[in-house]
Amino acid sequence: MTAGALLKVTVWGEGLEQEKPEAKRIYPDGIHEAIAAGLRAELGENALVRTATLEAPDHDLSGEVLEETDVLAWWGHRAHEDVDDVVVDRVVEHVLDGMGLLVLHSSHFSKPFLRLMGTRCSLRWRNDAEREIVWTVAPSHPIAEGLPPAIVIPEHEMYGEYFDVPPPDELVFISSFAGGEVFRSGCCWTRGNGRIFYFSPGHETFPVYHQPEIKRVLANGARWARRRSASVDTASSPNSPAGWFDAQ
Amino acid sequence: MTAGALLKVTVWGEGLEQEKPEAKRIYPDGIHEAIAAGLRAELGENALVRTATLEAPDHDLSGEVLEETDVLAWWGHRAHEDVDDVVVDRVVEHVLDGMGLLVLHSSHFSKPFLRLMGTRCSLRWRNDAEREIVWTVAPSHPIAEGLPPAIVIPEHEMYGEYFDVPPPDELVFISSFAGGEVFRSGCCWTRGNGRIFYFSPGHETFPVYHQPEIKRVLANGARWARRRSASVDTASSPNSPAGWFDAQ
Amino acid sequence: MTAGALLKVTVWGEGLEQEKPEAKRIYPDGIHEAIAAGLRAELGENALVRTATLEAPDHDLSGEVLEETDVLAWWGHRAHEDVDDVVVDRVVEHVLDGMGLLVLHSSHFSKPFLRLMGTRCSLRWRNDAEREIVWTVAPSHPIAEGLPPAIVIPEHEMYGEYFDVPPPDELVFISSFAGGEVFRSGCCWTRGNGRIFYFSPGHETFPVYHQPEIKRVLANGARWARRRSASVDTASSPNSPAGWFDAQ
Amino acid sequence: MTAGALLKVTVWGEGLEQEKPEAKRIYPDGIHEAIAAGLRAELGENALVRTATLEAPDHDLSGEVLEETDVLAWWGHRAHEDVDDVVVDRVVEHVLDGMGLLVLHSSHFSKPFLRLMGTRCSLRWRNDAEREIVWTVAPSHPIAEGLPPAIVIPEHEMYGEYFDVPPPDELVFISSFAGGEVFRSGCCWTRGNGRIFYFSPGHETFPVYHQPEIKRVLANGARWARRRSASVDTASSPNSPAGWFDAQ
Repeated sequence: MTAGALLKVTVWGEGLEQEKPEAKRIYPDGIHEAIAAGLRAELGENALVRTATLEAPDHDLSGEVLEETDVLAWWGHRAHEDVDDVVVDRVVEHVLDGMGLLVLHSSHFSKPFLRLMGTRCSLRWRNDAEREIVWTVAPSHPIAEGLPPAIVIPEHEMYGEYFDVPPPDELVFISSFAGGEVFRSGCCWTRGNGRIFYFSPGHETFPVYHQPEIKRVLANGARWARRRSASVDTASSPNSPAGWFDAQ
Repeated sequence: MTAGALLKVTVWGEGLEQEKPEAKRIYPDGIHEAIAAGLRAELGENALVRTATLEAPDHDLSGEVLEETDVLAWWGHRAHEDVDDVVVDRVVEHVLDGMGLLVLHSSHFSKPFLRLMGTRCSLRWRNDAEREIVWTVAPSHPIAEGLPPAIVIPEHEMYGEYFDVPPPDELVFISSFAGGEVFRSGCCWTRGNGRIFYFSPGHETFPVYHQPEIKRVLANGARWARRRSASVDTASSPNSPAGWFDAQ
Repeated sequence: MTAGALLKVTVWGEGLEQEKPEAKRIYPDGIHEAIAAGLRAELGENALVRTATLEAPDHDLSGEVLEETDVLAWWGHRAHEDVDDVVVDRVVEHVLDGMGLLVLHSSHFSKPFLRLMGTRCSLRWRNDAEREIVWTVAPSHPIAEGLPPAIVIPEHEMYGEYFDVPPPDELVFISSFAGGEVFRSGCCWTRGNGRIFYFSPGHETFPVYHQPEIKRVLANGARWARRRSASVDTASSPNSPAGWFDAQ
Repeated sequence: MTAGALLKVTVWGEGLEQEKPEAKRIYPDGIHEAIAAGLRAELGENALVRTATLEAPDHDLSGEVLEETDVLAWWGHRAHEDVDDVVVDRVVEHVLDGMGLLVLHSSHFSKPFLRLMGTRCSLRWRNDAEREIVWTVAPSHPIAEGLPPAIVIPEHEMYGEYFDVPPPDELVFISSFAGGEVFRSGCCWTRGNGRIFYFSPGHETFPVYHQPEIKRVLANGARWARRRSASVDTASSPNSPAGWFDAQ
């Protein structure tokens, strides 16, 4: 990473949530556009942020697009099953080769996340517009940079444990809900050359992505997950003669 | 560990909390005796459970006692400073040599725990008799064995994040409190040959240690932390000639 | 786990390696039978150890068999692609529901392991009959119990980094090879209710599974990975009304 | 971290190793000056790199110096015991408050590292000028950025397992030695608000710090460990009234 290198982010969304009136009121252009706007505002001229949606050919996620993507943000909810397996394969391969992945809210059930985790990614939920409080438990982590000890989301859907994911490599946030549940709401994993950040706030009927602290989390997440230059080739299992490393 | 080997547990307490009338009512013989009784009931004839207190010579923690201890449970609150540094050194050395350590509630500020963690072990607190819910986030962990997904403690002192400990090697429980805070309430670490389990429920003015699920957690913790036979000698840094391992 | 409860282990092998003369000499009944014999000797009357192979209907891994299996050991090499995806699904589901899984040597490329890891599981290799030394780096771990600091395998196939797996939840062993490579040779992961242990020694043309220390590792691994009783239901994502936990 | 913010590094060394003729030949101004020169070359104008030594008042590590230090690099060997405990306390407090710490080679036995780890930090060693190979096992980690899969150090002192440190939060490098030992040679930990990176290559009688890849590792380490702005106050344990977070 050169300090001045451009961070190229693609925000993928279903582009369907605007069909719900209450979501359309909050996110008139779709949630993906709100996420992208927040990233642009936070990352400034150091980043190039594009959007992509389900309806486009290849869901706007061709090989060319992914080659030019350092971090892919993913928001899906009702149409997980409509995502083409060819595209899912491509996304997974790109993550393993170094592309960062931000997995947002209901995307815990998205196909790429399920494939990369290897578990069921199930959780407990209740949509009662409850207060959620997001607590930082890793103050030195880059994703916590510039944040208060607690982010209060006045109304949100509850997501509760047991969240069926592999133990995160780094646990950054834990949320509580007014009803008493807890949730590991900010989780980091590394897989191959890639880095994955799951962040649970972001239901379509609440203005979560308009909160300044949430924008900051996503921008920090994009910086943390950005593609690195030191990737190893994991696509092959080389038969390596003795002393091969002397010829590097 | 032979399946039938006796598990030798020593429960250490200050033996001072009975001076508070509300604690004496709940724990007439001191908290350490209640903890020990719970362990005896849960572990049965496979365990030998003894108690030790501050006022005794060497705080009842002589080298002979620790040699005969597979797991030391520690409950302290008001008298951390009165624990002799010679005894603290001895406890820390025994943990590094393989003795298990259960660190309970306010013992997050006990001298042995501070020494083994290397951090400040500070936290946020409020003593308002709030509902605490202890959630299992590691269902395959031996310490979660036989427990429900959530343990409800009707009234307890709040302990909240940021809890200044090293990221646990295994995070077993997360608690929520009625006021909205969360806490990593069940944390495992390995240090040298020893295993450490911190469990936060257990304030002296609430009957937490009389709850069946809590007794189960402590018994599971003792089984998990028990001294192992495969210890390595970490007291020295051996200068090892080439091929030393062929002579093992 | 009741102390006296029977540990039910199923050892699965391809049953094809005996077709190589040098493998047949070392493992006349197939590698799976040698692994099973070692487990029986180590675990004694506390265990029931069965074997299963590729050629049988359902590869001997019907739902009934898996229901009666606490730990499944898996050894495959040349026939990964011949394993029926229906059986792979079943194995993965059972692991997520609590069945332990021991993944041995070339089974890093087996279908169940690839699915559970979510990565490519590739590695570097060289089959030059080199000395491998297996070092314990987690002395308090149950899988290291009773082992020396270093296990010397006089001749073995080299497996080297980068090993493309998720960072292990617990790293127990690291191997060196005469040619200079290193390998994370003993790795633990938890996934859902299940526990997975990968152990790399065990190429079919070397008598690795006849070494006493290796038998001990596999027996320790089976004990560590055994099915637990505290499983949560991860097959559903329950919509949970407020206060649901009070009715537990 | 603002992209353009200056990274302030202080390199501390004993300043005694030049008394050995073979060390003086390789590091005529002391090892600390070689480390500092490498950091300056790699980090360029984005960094301000100063040095400090044992003999100065306060070992050149006054409160003012540490306040102005984002990352402290530490190299010590023969004079660990001569480091004033007042300075050790100060260094530890600054790390817990957010200052990064690079711990180099024989500094595994330095007082600040021992205090922060809580273990004995012992290891196995042999000074036979053996080939060491440093393998990357975390390709997406910022400290691995721009490095080859293996760094070959032609001659070095052997450091071998068991290395008695807490399991690293992130394991970046594992070394092999010609004699067959392995070592976790690049380890990351977070403690409080601070980040700690231990890197084992760097014995005073070998030109390790003149190797370009080693300079790169140290520069990457400094960037990774730099002080963050999101620090929490861990020096106190606040009694927090209900709803305190609403007033943030």
